[in-house]
Amino acid sequence: MADKNRAVVFHGVKDMRVDTLDFPKLEMPNGKKAPHGVIVKLIATNICGSDLHIYRGSFPVPEGMVMGHEMTGEVVEVGSDVEFLKPGDIVSVPFNVACGRCRNCRNGRTEVCETTNPEVSCAAYGFNLGGFAGGQAEYMFVPYADFQLLRFPDKDQAMERILDLAVLSDILPTAYHGLVEAGVKPGSTVYIAGAGPVGRCGAAAARLMGASCIIVGDYYEDRLELVRQNGCETINLSKVDSINDAIEAILGTPYVDCAVDYVGNEAHGLGEEAEKTKSSYAINQVLDATRPGGATGIIGVYGANPISPVPAEREGVYSLNFGDAWIKSPRIAGGQAPIMHYNRELMMSILWDRMPYLSDMLNIKVISLDEAPQAYADFDKGSSLKYVIDPHGSIPTAK
Amino acid sequence: MADKNRAVVFHGVKDMRVDTLDFPKLEMPNGKKAPHGVIVKLIATNICGSDLHIYRGSFPVPEGMVMGHEMTGEVVEVGSDVEFLKPGDIVSVPFNVACGRCRNCRNGRTEVCETTNPEVSCAAYGFNLGGFAGGQAEYMFVPYADFQLLRFPDKDQAMERILDLAVLSDILPTAYHGLVEAGVKPGSTVYIAGAGPVGRCGAAAARLMGASCIIVGDYYEDRLELVRQNGCETINLSKVDSINDAIEAILGTPYVDCAVDYVGNEAHGLGEEAEKTKSSYAINQVLDATRPGGATGIIGVYGANPISPVPAEREGVYSLNFGDAWIKSPRIAGGQAPIMHYNRELMMSILWDRMPYLSDMLNIKVISLDEAPQAYADFDKGSSLKYVIDPHGSIPTAK
Amino acid sequence: MADKNRAVVFHGVKDMRVDTLDFPKLEMPNGKKAPHGVIVKLIATNICGSDLHIYRGSFPVPEGMVMGHEMTGEVVEVGSDVEFLKPGDIVSVPFNVACGRCRNCRNGRTEVCETTNPEVSCAAYGFNLGGFAGGQAEYMFVPYADFQLLRFPDKDQAMERILDLAVLSDILPTAYHGLVEAGVKPGSTVYIAGAGPVGRCGAAAARLMGASCIIVGDYYEDRLELVRQNGCETINLSKVDSINDAIEAILGTPYVDCAVDYVGNEAHGLGEEAEKTKSSYAINQVLDATRPGGATGIIGVYGANPISPVPAEREGVYSLNFGDAWIKSPRIAGGQAPIMHYNRELMMSILWDRMPYLSDMLNIKVISLDEAPQAYADFDKGSSLKYVIDPHGSIPTAK
Amino acid sequence: MADKNRAVVFHGVKDMRVDTLDFPKLEMPNGKKAPHGVIVKLIATNICGSDLHIYRGSFPVPEGMVMGHEMTGEVVEVGSDVEFLKPGDIVSVPFNVACGRCRNCRNGRTEVCETTNPEVSCAAYGFNLGGFAGGQAEYMFVPYADFQLLRFPDKDQAMERILDLAVLSDILPTAYHGLVEAGVKPGSTVYIAGAGPVGRCGAAAARLMGASCIIVGDYYEDRLELVRQNGCETINLSKVDSINDAIEAILGTPYVDCAVDYVGNEAHGLGEEAEKTKSSYAINQVLDATRPGGATGIIGVYGANPISPVPAEREGVYSLNFGDAWIKSPRIAGGQAPIMHYNRELMMSILWDRMPYLSDMLNIKVISLDEAPQAYADFDKGSSLKYVIDPHGSIPTAK
Repeated sequence: MADKNRAVVFHGVKDMRVDTLDFPKLEMPNGKKAPHGVIVKLIATNICGSDLHIYRGSFPVPEGMVMGHEMTGEVVEVGSDVEFLKPGDIVSVPFNVACGRCRNCRNGRTEVCETTNPEVSCAAYGFNLGGFAGGQAEYMFVPYADFQLLRFPDKDQAMERILDLAVLSDILPTAYHGLVEAGVKPGSTVYIAGAGPVGRCGAAAARLMGASCIIVGDYYEDRLELVRQNGCETINLSKVDSINDAIEAILGTPYVDCAVDYVGNEAHGLGEEAEKTKSSYAINQVLDATRPGGATGIIGVYGANPISPVPAEREGVYSLNFGDAWIKSPRIAGGQAPIMHYNRELMMSILWDRMPYLSDMLNIKVISLDEAPQAYADFDKGSSLKYVIDPHGSIPTAK
Repeated sequence: MADKNRAVVFHGVKDMRVDTLDFPKLEMPNGKKAPHGVIVKLIATNICGSDLHIYRGSFPVPEGMVMGHEMTGEVVEVGSDVEFLKPGDIVSVPFNVACGRCRNCRNGRTEVCETTNPEVSCAAYGFNLGGFAGGQAEYMFVPYADFQLLRFPDKDQAMERILDLAVLSDILPTAYHGLVEAGVKPGSTVYIAGAGPVGRCGAAAARLMGASCIIVGDYYEDRLELVRQNGCETINLSKVDSINDAIEAILGTPYVDCAVDYVGNEAHGLGEEAEKTKSSYAINQVLDATRPGGATGIIGVYGANPISPVPAEREGVYSLNFGDAWIKSPRIAGGQAPIMHYNRELMMSILWDRMPYLSDMLNIKVISLDEAPQAYADFDKGSSLKYVIDPHGSIPTAK
Repeated sequence: MADKNRAVVFHGVKDMRVDTLDFPKLEMPNGKKAPHGVIVKLIATNICGSDLHIYRGSFPVPEGMVMGHEMTGEVVEVGSDVEFLKPGDIVSVPFNVACGRCRNCRNGRTEVCETTNPEVSCAAYGFNLGGFAGGQAEYMFVPYADFQLLRFPDKDQAMERILDLAVLSDILPTAYHGLVEAGVKPGSTVYIAGAGPVGRCGAAAARLMGASCIIVGDYYEDRLELVRQNGCETINLSKVDSINDAIEAILGTPYVDCAVDYVGNEAHGLGEEAEKTKSSYAINQVLDATRPGGATGIIGVYGANPISPVPAEREGVYSLNFGDAWIKSPRIAGGQAPIMHYNRELMMSILWDRMPYLSDMLNIKVISLDEAPQAYADFDKGSSLKYVIDPHGSIPTAK
Repeated sequence: MADKNRAVVFHGVKDMRVDTLDFPKLEMPNGKKAPHGVIVKLIATNICGSDLHIYRGSFPVPEGMVMGHEMTGEVVEVGSDVEFLKPGDIVSVPFNVACGRCRNCRNGRTEVCETTNPEVSCAAYGFNLGGFAGGQAEYMFVPYADFQLLRFPDKDQAMERILDLAVLSDILPTAYHGLVEAGVKPGSTVYIAGAGPVGRCGAAAARLMGASCIIVGDYYEDRLELVRQNGCETINLSKVDSINDAIEAILGTPYVDCAVDYVGNEAHGLGEEAEKTKSSYAINQVLDATRPGGATGIIGVYGANPISPVPAEREGVYSLNFGDAWIKSPRIAGGQAPIMHYNRELMMSILWDRMPYLSDMLNIKVISLDEAPQAYADFDKGSSLKYVIDPHGSIPTAK
């Protein structure tokens, strides 16, 4: 067993570095023993769009924090109260840290676990939400492992499809959650705001769910091309002045049944306002896009934005077109996704080959741990790649 | 049969009058024949809190419009395509006008009927939403009667409980809808913003649903007293600075499971801000009150407020504390209630005596048609009465 | 306009004939005027597996009844209270007759309409359930047309895909309903009992819904081949002794998440009992196949079977393995499907090309009205074809 | 701390005795250490109707098994991986044993836990389902305590209402589950088969849920009197020949919206068949009672009955009137209740006084451990009492 741990560490805004740290222990952030925990050796550990909030400084974290919350790996050590996992198991780690013992976890709402970060009832690895070290590393600690981890049925089968399975820790279930909350079912028409990795997972998941017309809006043509080649319609938001007109041009009606915001508060406007940013641009677009009687998911991250020049945005106050929305009987759901609620089913869909278009839409690039700092910089510039770190060089190369 | 129709008519802001009009015809507002319609002779026709928006000018309607959308009455004439109603039937008229033939009506979403007011997919009597004359009158026309009307099983039984049954046309199902959307079930803790008639119906409905702790917030002590005497906790919002502190003092925890806004955009602040109005005060209070993983209903009316001094409010833009809400995984539902979805069940609860506290909470005063203009004025000043107009003097006097 | 109507008529067990009848009127079976009705000129009118119950005598109907309940056609005449349909519209006719005005219809439960066949709260065309003439004919009467009919958005587009759209009147929504009731969602493992046309629609619908492993059981290899070539696993039920062993051989676990019976009471046993029939064979197989905590749909037709040699079966009493099922916390749903609840969404999926495998699985043969009697005989012998009658020769030949 | 444990032990059919055993250890039935477990000192431990199945021999258990699965008590010892409970906490123990770590537990389906009794995916204390010792004792072992136990907020408050709270371990949530599965909501009409303690809890829970007409059927007039005095209608099943006629006499229509079987397979017939038993009597009665489009809960215990004289019943095969049911679109749910899914909410309703009628309906008699064998005999004869054992004499006497 290794006695050190190399990891991507936050040293300041736009300053990520690979450091060598101590090997993780079966211990909670507050030092309490964790007999329910395991140590995972990372196989695939992704960079997420929400890591960019940290990178840019809009989500403040302490210097020295290990980054990363999208982890897939191999169990290498188990605590004394772990019964259903053993070394050698290949697992997906949901990004939310959840105890499985509080009221919310018992109800399947692991995204608002009451005990792992009592300050705000929401804990995550690598996110200054509970103090849990992230997983852009060689090894990591995972508490409540029997409850939290998704074990893949077979190691060889898992390694064959590891890049598809790697998105089960966050972005595929997160994207799916947004669609579920927006009421997507077979035949639904769907608007997806944002063609970044989560939005593209949303497009893929909408196909899996049997949605009819799937419309994706973004500003980057190469991202839009990825979804257009895989059964979706697209809107280049810099070229339209009204989301409803753009939808009507595709669908013959100005609204979709279901709309999901995968953008969050660093949002841009339409047409002439495409260069401008306002924290409520994306959320208002999806509210506008939703039909009377439809539903809307707000999956992009919203909170106080400490680096915004606008005082209200710094306090997390948003200017929403709620008057236009209210008369349409809106149903709006937001927040993080309870990954555990969805990851098993999505794994099954992948293992039985029901998402053959997923890889094409994801456009994954596998990188080493040392390449991670540069990948942050490239992703920040709007790259259409999804970066997956392979800390031990164990991902089969010819995927 | 009468050949005239006396009715409460809007003549301008704060100017309601009783006029004598023509007897209604089986005809849609655009003059089209309506073989699916009936004429109803009103027995009980209530003044609603949302009528005050018209009275005050914050919801503009054309001069000459007949007011009223909470109607209970007797069928006196039926069209040629009415099969399941006959003269003499006592019925409750849902305030939404709904065709029963469009996609939304077929799905039970009668509050967003696509055909009766295609301009905004939302029609109501007496509201400039589709041009349908209101029911604060002796007689009224109701289209799509087989689909829309709730027939009471027995006339004598209905007349005995007419004042309880009179709130089935709007405020009881509306209040109930807010609770359903906020996820209320047996044992839930509930915060109800507003102790006007709809809020009081919400308190009554929450009891019917088996809610545990029901907390009602308002500024008027006489309204709060009505619910306090009927099994609810109360918060005088002019005396607290934080909704969460006030909830914690009652419940031992700063949040409720479910919160519903029955106020709308003419809202007041807390404590020192109790005299101030801001369109987003009430909605932010219920968002704040809701626990992580809970849900929120926005039943109070939100839209553009043309008489607000604030430009954003005039355009229906609201400043919401969405940053604080998002991390709690909010589920927010708003809009009008599809009355038909609930009125039959609530009628059954009333007829089997499951809401013995309803009358006490409602505090109904029966008035004549001629007393209606004065009742508008009194209600506008915050009266704790619910006014029910009895245009034909047919309501039994010993309530 | 024609003044006669040629139609497939039941003359006795295994005796179907094409007769010339009077042109249909806008009139209910009891002779009452139906201003809400339309006359439809049939474009595609299918023979259904449940028509075989009538053909074989297990579902008695009066001599002279017009057969058929899977209809797609063109509106040619509308009643005076039809507002949203006009001659020329291409429509799908749901097989259930539903008024849109009773308690069940208002709640979307059109399969148990309370008024169109009050004797058993369940009406259908061509089925001695309410006396409504069937649609294996040139023309037919459809009541409550605004409520009941699904209009295709565009005539040319509809004619291009008419064979896929033709199954929207019954078997695709029926199959889908079984899966919905069995809780199918993305990633579910599914067992489908029966590879007849409904079972094959079930297999197709399960793919649309994102199911992972879809296992179809039947006795006919050519039927099984149709689904095996389209992404499903299969079990030849004459070759296995235990449904659980057969499932385990495919899935590694003896149960599926969701199982649906598309067979009904003319069912056969497993392995050595494959030649034997017992009314409860299929239902017990799907109960056995369902995992603890799973759910089961019973879509095959169950009722009293007057031609069974077993007295209990003649009375509709079934011997169910409910003891084994109960400990698994079963959720069992049966009955006819409320077609209206699903047909619009499934139409959208077809129009946006989300079921490219549907035609291949269906294996449709288009026939003339005069060929219908022979098609009944062939279908009765287990043909893997789905017969669609084209009474006016209007279906494009190059399918 | 005590070093012995007195308990009610099964010695054979109709032979229960109080034995002195070893003090329980933090150990699973297979001897494995259970750091997740606690020892509970029993305060109230009830005799359940399903204990009678063991008493009578229709549910075989090994000689020497400790009886009891309805436990409320005080935590006196905690394992090393118990984080959220401490000695002194007053807790309700759900009767199902559930790990909180398997697929079903993660989904809230603790009644079909896959690991605590893998043989049938269903474990319970005192029931030969997993080998867990029962709780009709002074002390007991409870595994997975953080996940499983419901802690009451305050000890004094709990002791004041201990007899109401004592039914949270099984019969109140079990009864409630049946109503939930049968779709009960405010205004529903409900038929409850069986006025034993679970049926009476069903009647109480139906009131809590806002049901309108609640009809309870049984053979014992003293049981029926308990519910009749608390807002329910009753049917003496020995005096009627048709459940539908009896319902119609009360309700004016032969069906209820929702029907729940709280009887199980030791059921009796109607009228002249009241003295006869048949395993399917009760289930057929509730299927018959349910309206088209309604739903049915099967909460009474069904399985193989080894002491039945009828061979099919000994194999768990039931003769169900499924033919009559199918055409009504039945939704039938059976099995044990996932207590954890409901107990917290019902506790809140009790603590906020929303079930003032519960005690009256329950008719509890508190007894000592030594009186338990006699209580079994009395309960077997149809007593209308609910027996609660108080092993340490700690229940306040003035109930």
